[in-house]
Amino acid sequence: MDISKTVTCKAPINIAVIKYWGKRDEKLILPVNSSLSATLHIDQLCTTTSIAGSKHFPEDRLWLNGKEESLENPRVKTCLQEIRKRARKRKISDDESNPEDWKLHICSENNFPTAAGLASSAAGYACLVATLAQVYGVQGNVSDIARQGSGSACRSMYGGFVEWLDGESSCGSDSIAQQVVDENYWSEMRILILVVSDQKKHTSSTAGMQTTVKTSELLQHRVTLIPGYMETMRKAIKDRDYRTFAELTMKDSNQMHAVCLDTYPPISYMNDTSRSIVQMVHDYNSFHGETKACYTFDAGPNAVLYVLEENVSEVLSLIHHSFPPSQDNKEYIRGLDSRIHDIPQGLQCAMKRDPNPGALKYIIHSKVGPQVVTDLELSLPDQNGMPKKFATWS
Amino acid sequence: MDISKTVTCKAPINIAVIKYWGKRDEKLILPVNSSLSATLHIDQLCTTTSIAGSKHFPEDRLWLNGKEESLENPRVKTCLQEIRKRARKRKISDDESNPEDWKLHICSENNFPTAAGLASSAAGYACLVATLAQVYGVQGNVSDIARQGSGSACRSMYGGFVEWLDGESSCGSDSIAQQVVDENYWSEMRILILVVSDQKKHTSSTAGMQTTVKTSELLQHRVTLIPGYMETMRKAIKDRDYRTFAELTMKDSNQMHAVCLDTYPPISYMNDTSRSIVQMVHDYNSFHGETKACYTFDAGPNAVLYVLEENVSEVLSLIHHSFPPSQDNKEYIRGLDSRIHDIPQGLQCAMKRDPNPGALKYIIHSKVGPQVVTDLELSLPDQNGMPKKFATWS
Repeated sequence: MDISKTVTCKAPINIAVIKYWGKRDEKLILPVNSSLSATLHIDQLCTTTSIAGSKHFPEDRLWLNGKEESLENPRVKTCLQEIRKRARKRKISDDESNPEDWKLHICSENNFPTAAGLASSAAGYACLVATLAQVYGVQGNVSDIARQGSGSACRSMYGGFVEWLDGESSCGSDSIAQQVVDENYWSEMRILILVVSDQKKHTSSTAGMQTTVKTSELLQHRVTLIPGYMETMRKAIKDRDYRTFAELTMKDSNQMHAVCLDTYPPISYMNDTSRSIVQMVHDYNSFHGETKACYTFDAGPNAVLYVLEENVSEVLSLIHHSFPPSQDNKEYIRGLDSRIHDIPQGLQCAMKRDPNPGALKYIIHSKVGPQVVTDLELSLPDQNGMPKKFATWS
Repeated sequence: MDISKTVTCKAPINIAVIKYWGKRDEKLILPVNSSLSATLHIDQLCTTTSIAGSKHFPEDRLWLNGKEESLENPRVKTCLQEIRKRARKRKISDDESNPEDWKLHICSENNFPTAAGLASSAAGYACLVATLAQVYGVQGNVSDIARQGSGSACRSMYGGFVEWLDGESSCGSDSIAQQVVDENYWSEMRILILVVSDQKKHTSSTAGMQTTVKTSELLQHRVTLIPGYMETMRKAIKDRDYRTFAELTMKDSNQMHAVCLDTYPPISYMNDTSRSIVQMVHDYNSFHGETKACYTFDAGPNAVLYVLEENVSEVLSLIHHSFPPSQDNKEYIRGLDSRIHDIPQGLQCAMKRDPNPGALKYIIHSKVGPQVVTDLELSLPDQNGMPKKFATWS
């Protein structure tokens, strides 16, 4: 089989501290407000995508986590179309076959279980678009294309802290992601993902946002508040002002979930375990008389905590105390090196809720990471452009 | 002992369908918005208060549920002062001793357990003020005095559907309760109180409201929406338009809890059982393609359902199916006569959540009731003005 080009990329997930909730354009995925996130390090969580292009492939094909999926998914189609459109604009050098004639075999895998309820679509579409751009030699900001796959995917195109501008144009050309600071700027920042055990089926964020935009009267007000939040958050990050960063992160998360509750019928992503985590963080900050931890929640019950490196060990120890692992849980804390210790009696007493064993499945310890990594040696398809791992595939 | 006068009253609780959340004046208890509630029938839930007045009593005394309480409580003091102030304005007939010289023995009891988490302060202060008004012969609208005991108490002074006007005056004279329709106007309305088993200690509504007013940016917007809600709700009640009534009741409850969540630190009164009840009601309405039940939640996890009489049996049966009583629960459904039956397979299948045995403690079946009942024969204190039931009291 004559494969003209194979490209592999890795893309990170991101966790917003100013949340995106609500679209002003469903098709182009234009948001009702700007948002801001940290990109997580790909060492802990990432999507890997390999694309093989060949004029000998009869058709485009797609495998997600080893399972072939239809390419009729309109969002995947849009990403392919948009990249090919942009590719036609660049000059093709003479020594290449024309990639416009290629069909693609796309293989994509996450290094974390989908069942964990971690939003994988951001990393997935960021990786798809980054890899496609490499295949077709498209340069420049392609975050607007990733955005059309999954809104928050545009933020995964960059490392560090990243903002996604709401933009004004009806065609979406100015609704793009851009870096606020890179991953080395606030290198003390650590991220703890608390994966909650009870993962019921939730309202998808796409459906949830639609209902919120249609029915929540409070959302209209939230939208007017966001420009101020964005300015405060940008400044807090640039000043490395943890307290302002943390308090606004918590307030913004709570407000996003408030507009979900104000939706009709109401949407609740947080459960009793989520609320216990909220209480634990506020009890912890009260105990110290200082904001040393903060939480944020996306469209599910998992909490993400942003904590400075110097406090990680204490916070992890407190989580371990408040949510002891169930007995058979050997890999309770994953990711970066973590040390836990017994927490002092005073801190134990400051916790208003009793320990809740088994309420968390596991914890991932990560940090702010770099942007999409392109053109890796590793390749998921074999020399025939078929997924390697799955011998039974035709 | 020469007791000049003994008066006994019974007062109902009320459950708001447009919620009161936030004060513009803490001392006078003036709300940031108008609210509207149904008064519940005193046969199911009420406070009984007896007051004996005598010039021979050395001091005012107060017993709540049999336990003597300090009269230093500023809200109780305010109610006493305000009634006495108003009493001085009326002409005292010559054949009475001057009640201004009297000291009072006040006994008050609820016919429901405080641990049930049902707001008892509304009935308590309504009863106190109604009984005081009888003792001192004060006539006219005294809801503004009850309001200074506990905001929502003013609505318990009337039967049927009652609104509490926010008012404009800084002295609170126009922030009073008034009847929208009496208890016979929409006689088909039934009320189901679902008492949730897990009653953790909650943020008091007084403290919660204060924090919300200080920190929630969404509350400011909610306040501008309430006049429209009030108008829609008044009209729905007058038109006996269940669908509009029910949908606005659910939306307003969700919005109140949304501003609680938007508070910093956030306040959560609803728990996972509360949210399962919400889901059950929406699944039920979806199944019928018609709004046949609605929920509302106050400052705790208990749900109150408003249901028309013709649907009560089906809704109770559905609750029994979705939240089966724990095995030793003999009095699961209390109050008005209730019939339950097996629910059809189709309705069972329409429920998205699995049955959750033991999640509810019990259910109270009630209806819209009359106003405070004054001057009952029954009297809690004995001929010496001491609580009857409690032999050990001095």
